Amino acid sequence: MQFHLNGYSPGDPDILPAAPGAENRLAQLPESVDVLIVGSGPAGTLLAAQLSTFPGISTRLVERRNGPLQLGQADGVACRTVEMFEAFGLSAKLVREAYWVNETAFWRPSPEDRSRIVRTGRVQDTEDGLSEFPHVIVNQARMQEYLLEYMRKSPTRLEPDYGLEFVGLQVDAEGEHPVRVTLRKVSSDTTTEVRAKYVVGCDGARSLVRRAIGAEPRGDFANHAWGVMDMLAVTDFPDIRLKAAIQSADEGNILLIPREGGHLVRLYVDLGEVDPNKRAAMREQNSVDKVIAIAQRVLRPYTLDVRDVVWFSVYEVGQRVTDRFDDVPPEQAGSRLPRVFIAGDACHTHSAKAGQGMNVSMQDAFNIGWKLVSVLEQRAGPELLRTYSQERHAIAQGLIDFDKQWSKIMASPPKDPAHPELGGVDPAELQAYFVKSGRYTAGVATRYPSATLLTAQPIHQDLARGFTIGMRFHSAPVVRLADAKPMQLGHAARADAAWRIYAFADASGERLRALADFLADSPKSPIRRSAPKSPTLRSAPECAEIDSVIDLRAVFQQGHRDLQVEQLPSMLLPRTGRFGLVDYEKVFCPDLKNGPDIFVLRGIDRAKGAMVVVRPDQYVANVLPLDAHDELAAFFAGFLLDRR
Amino acid sequence: MQFHLNGYSPGDPDILPAAPGAENRLAQLPESVDVLIVGSGPAGTLLAAQLSTFPGISTRLVERRNGPLQLGQADGVACRTVEMFEAFGLSAKLVREAYWVNETAFWRPSPEDRSRIVRTGRVQDTEDGLSEFPHVIVNQARMQEYLLEYMRKSPTRLEPDYGLEFVGLQVDAEGEHPVRVTLRKVSSDTTTEVRAKYVVGCDGARSLVRRAIGAEPRGDFANHAWGVMDMLAVTDFPDIRLKAAIQSADEGNILLIPREGGHLVRLYVDLGEVDPNKRAAMREQNSVDKVIAIAQRVLRPYTLDVRDVVWFSVYEVGQRVTDRFDDVPPEQAGSRLPRVFIAGDACHTHSAKAGQGMNVSMQDAFNIGWKLVSVLEQRAGPELLRTYSQERHAIAQGLIDFDKQWSKIMASPPKDPAHPELGGVDPAELQAYFVKSGRYTAGVATRYPSATLLTAQPIHQDLARGFTIGMRFHSAPVVRLADAKPMQLGHAARADAAWRIYAFADASGERLRALADFLADSPKSPIRRSAPKSPTLRSAPECAEIDSVIDLRAVFQQGHRDLQVEQLPSMLLPRTGRFGLVDYEKVFCPDLKNGPDIFVLRGIDRAKGAMVVVRPDQYVANVLPLDAHDELAAFFAGFLLDRR
Repeated sequence: MQFHLNGYSPGDPDILPAAPGAENRLAQLPESVDVLIVGSGPAGTLLAAQLSTFPGISTRLVERRNGPLQLGQADGVACRTVEMFEAFGLSAKLVREAYWVNETAFWRPSPEDRSRIVRTGRVQDTEDGLSEFPHVIVNQARMQEYLLEYMRKSPTRLEPDYGLEFVGLQVDAEGEHPVRVTLRKVSSDTTTEVRAKYVVGCDGARSLVRRAIGAEPRGDFANHAWGVMDMLAVTDFPDIRLKAAIQSADEGNILLIPREGGHLVRLYVDLGEVDPNKRAAMREQNSVDKVIAIAQRVLRPYTLDVRDVVWFSVYEVGQRVTDRFDDVPPEQAGSRLPRVFIAGDACHTHSAKAGQGMNVSMQDAFNIGWKLVSVLEQRAGPELLRTYSQERHAIAQGLIDFDKQWSKIMASPPKDPAHPELGGVDPAELQAYFVKSGRYTAGVATRYPSATLLTAQPIHQDLARGFTIGMRFHSAPVVRLADAKPMQLGHAARADAAWRIYAFADASGERLRALADFLADSPKSPIRRSAPKSPTLRSAPECAEIDSVIDLRAVFQQGHRDLQVEQLPSMLLPRTGRFGLVDYEKVFCPDLKNGPDIFVLRGIDRAKGAMVVVRPDQYVANVLPLDAHDELAAFFAGFLLDRR
Repeated sequence: MQFHLNGYSPGDPDILPAAPGAENRLAQLPESVDVLIVGSGPAGTLLAAQLSTFPGISTRLVERRNGPLQLGQADGVACRTVEMFEAFGLSAKLVREAYWVNETAFWRPSPEDRSRIVRTGRVQDTEDGLSEFPHVIVNQARMQEYLLEYMRKSPTRLEPDYGLEFVGLQVDAEGEHPVRVTLRKVSSDTTTEVRAKYVVGCDGARSLVRRAIGAEPRGDFANHAWGVMDMLAVTDFPDIRLKAAIQSADEGNILLIPREGGHLVRLYVDLGEVDPNKRAAMREQNSVDKVIAIAQRVLRPYTLDVRDVVWFSVYEVGQRVTDRFDDVPPEQAGSRLPRVFIAGDACHTHSAKAGQGMNVSMQDAFNIGWKLVSVLEQRAGPELLRTYSQERHAIAQGLIDFDKQWSKIMASPPKDPAHPELGGVDPAELQAYFVKSGRYTAGVATRYPSATLLTAQPIHQDLARGFTIGMRFHSAPVVRLADAKPMQLGHAARADAAWRIYAFADASGERLRALADFLADSPKSPIRRSAPKSPTLRSAPECAEIDSVIDLRAVFQQGHRDLQVEQLPSMLLPRTGRFGLVDYEKVFCPDLKNGPDIFVLRGIDRAKGAMVVVRPDQYVANVLPLDAHDELAAFFAGFLLDRR
């Protein structure tokens, strides 16, 4: 964490200095805003948090409910999401509070007595080295609170506008704020209009923004129903504090998820396919007492004495992907730029069992977030926004495909060894599938296709084999040179919409130094070209410095005691803030004390070194030789504006 | 963290349910309180935080200043202090914000040109394995804020009473609230009287509480002066982000401490001994500009361009220990019980250079804190309070002895190789001394003498050689059985004034099970005898449960997949809260994945096992064989009341 840059300020360093006027925020919506976000779920709050850091961007977040979510809904937080939260400075709080999914247990009918379940296996949940963070579980409400708190502490002091419902929108062909949005004030049933440069609909599975832009959910319209329950219970089931996939012979299946705080437990009880014509009857049949009774039968011979039901819902959902995530129909793709986007459940609906929903939704938001910042801050042209629907639609389709397979295997009855001809899933098969899909559920399997505007062809991938182009930057341990602090290299990244170049030194370090000099001095330097014209005060910390658009970090090969701070090139000791202080946090060395170093872990070419270009949402965009100055410049020229 | 025990509550789980009436707290002081704390420095806020958890104890914290400290003063936070903060749930926040002291650099005059300094060495600051936490640096003001926030979130919602100055006190011979305290309201210059059961003076080096109880600072009255400065600067001195001890040939010495946030730096500039008769002249001579000029000369050939001075102070201090830390003169020790205590700088004053002050002060408070809780909650008789002055006086004396040696070596001129006959300190000697004293400065060398009420004779020390009786419980990695979570065993401890028995299993586990049964069922069980008569709601989380006075934790020898939850004795699955839920967090297994396990690391006898009895302030009180049921009972009977 860097703070006290422009002088000492007492108190919580996460509370950033307020931008002028931020604390006199209007209670009413202004006539026009840069970005209007509809819906304060995981996608909406993450996007609002990301934008709130930029005082130059006016953002509003409207929410139909009259206050923040209190409980229920999603709870699975993939490793990748914790990595993203680290960029917001929220990971320490999250991993401290959350339940850690360390292992998953599998239960099936006993071969001796099929009316009783027995444990058939127990596997580590996340493979070693997959992420520096655990897979955790915490209430969606709490996840949103972390982000709401982040917004309140940001320079814009952003707060949601509650009690405002989206009614409809119109996109004008021109004008600075071409999107006209009609909102209804729930308390007074009056409507109001707001104009926006951009609108992002994070308004859930029944999204009205989606309808307004004429986008269509596609896929399987058969709904599957689950009884979902958060409860406090006394039981002799031994794995009540482990994630457990439980298949009974004849009573159905349960997915058991322990929750934060050491006592709460969530059960997903499979209620099967729903006949859309008999929905009311289905809900009646599946009262909380009936669902508890099913769970009790599944768990036999163990007892389940439910002492308190905290939240209960029967929910049905189909596996569907919306055909496009912005307002531009395919036939107008060449002639029109997107102004309205959807993210989260508005784009994709699927089962809850693989614990993906909240995570993929927040990743949608993290993708559109930096792109909106780049365009609104005039770092990039608006064509950049086309990549959002392209990139995230493919991810959503992959999610649905995964979910179909996962749901099918989870919902199938267990194979009866006495009657294999009846079919069903072999518990060993279920367990094997779970292990195989671990990277997917951890959220680290996402891969954007290469040879696009933002993701280069993997011509030089061999220079850094562990940083796969198109996939998330996989952090590894390093030691920061100036203060000898052991840390994760990936934690240098902040949710500040900046690109990062991680330059790994060649054997002599000469090519790395030459790169740093090129970036500092050459008129072709993408850092110089993209940096704001007149760096102003860092009142919004990351907005106006030389590293605010492209941030150079270096990893040398020497141990940190063998590299001299005083011999670093100036680009690696940049001046910052109103006092022109030196930023000492750009340079790292391998951690030689704890196992293989980062060059080994990530397959970096020690002779040649490598340059790893990372997007603001932490995906690897390019791997280049250290001396590929022109290629680097050309890559950034593909989408960044020349501001010099 | 355990929460949602009595039902789900939304929001920050660190905000505990308010005790009845806590939120309607009187703006004015009540006529009488259980504990009155004078002074809101490190000792006062830590003590108030500890007491604030107990709704049954009325506590007030008065402070002369009209608000919380904003900046300046101490900044060194020893590993041991971070361990203690973990028990308050504050370590994650602290280590995230703070500067980490990873290494210390030593600089001395160049042998070739004594007008220039050169780096002569660089050492790791804290030896490997000494603590699970780093040595960190953060402003004292921020440390106090963490604790003030903890108080605000506690069941009593405790807030300091600012603008109230201590004037004097009188201890009556009898009465429920025998201490009559006179306070002055600073704003109106009016006095008021409060009656208290106990008063703790945390009112600093010029303590008026100390004077009121007739205690006397003893020791060296010669004062040493330092210029202390927190600043933002530009320099080419390469170790500006490392702790550095710098000795120049003729210009004096500097201790440089980097600070939180990546930019701020503290300098201690040695100004030598002060003639008490020339104090005003000394202050005049040592203006901020003069002190900067000294620093610039010491750092030659490097430049120091100070851009902002955040805080500057010239402070002089003698090395003194107060003769007693409570109100009972030695001649009345047999006939009178203490009612008034002093803690922190009121007890001991010394140099700032070894970074001990804030740490030892908070340890004073952590020592008296649980003892006051024990007596006020009627767990123990008031004789227990006598041990405070006994234990902490010896520690303070050790601190002064250490500080004298440390200050002397730091203040001595460096030896000139050309003129060894002139004396001075060899830089290698300084560095060697620094390494040797590492455990002391980390705060983990504290050892209470054995064969006292609270610290047993080390008869069975061989059963657990790494848990030295009288020293702090040295945490080690384990895996929690029920949820397979890798964690630190020491983090089971909360700042809840409870004793903990860590039972390490014998080879078969039989003796451990017998111990658990004894503790559950025997009328001689100290847990049964000491537990509150009618366990009520855990509205104050740790106050009324079976584990609230003595908390049993077990560490088995098997890997966590080889031990069956369902076969644990009931004492290790205790019922808790209004729903009678099972507490699954009492049992641990070795962490077999990451290096040597806890039995190896802490020298536990694998054949016999061991019982390690740990005080509420985390010091090991006793090591016993698992079958020493009677000895265990006798140990606790020495100070705990029988409440059955």
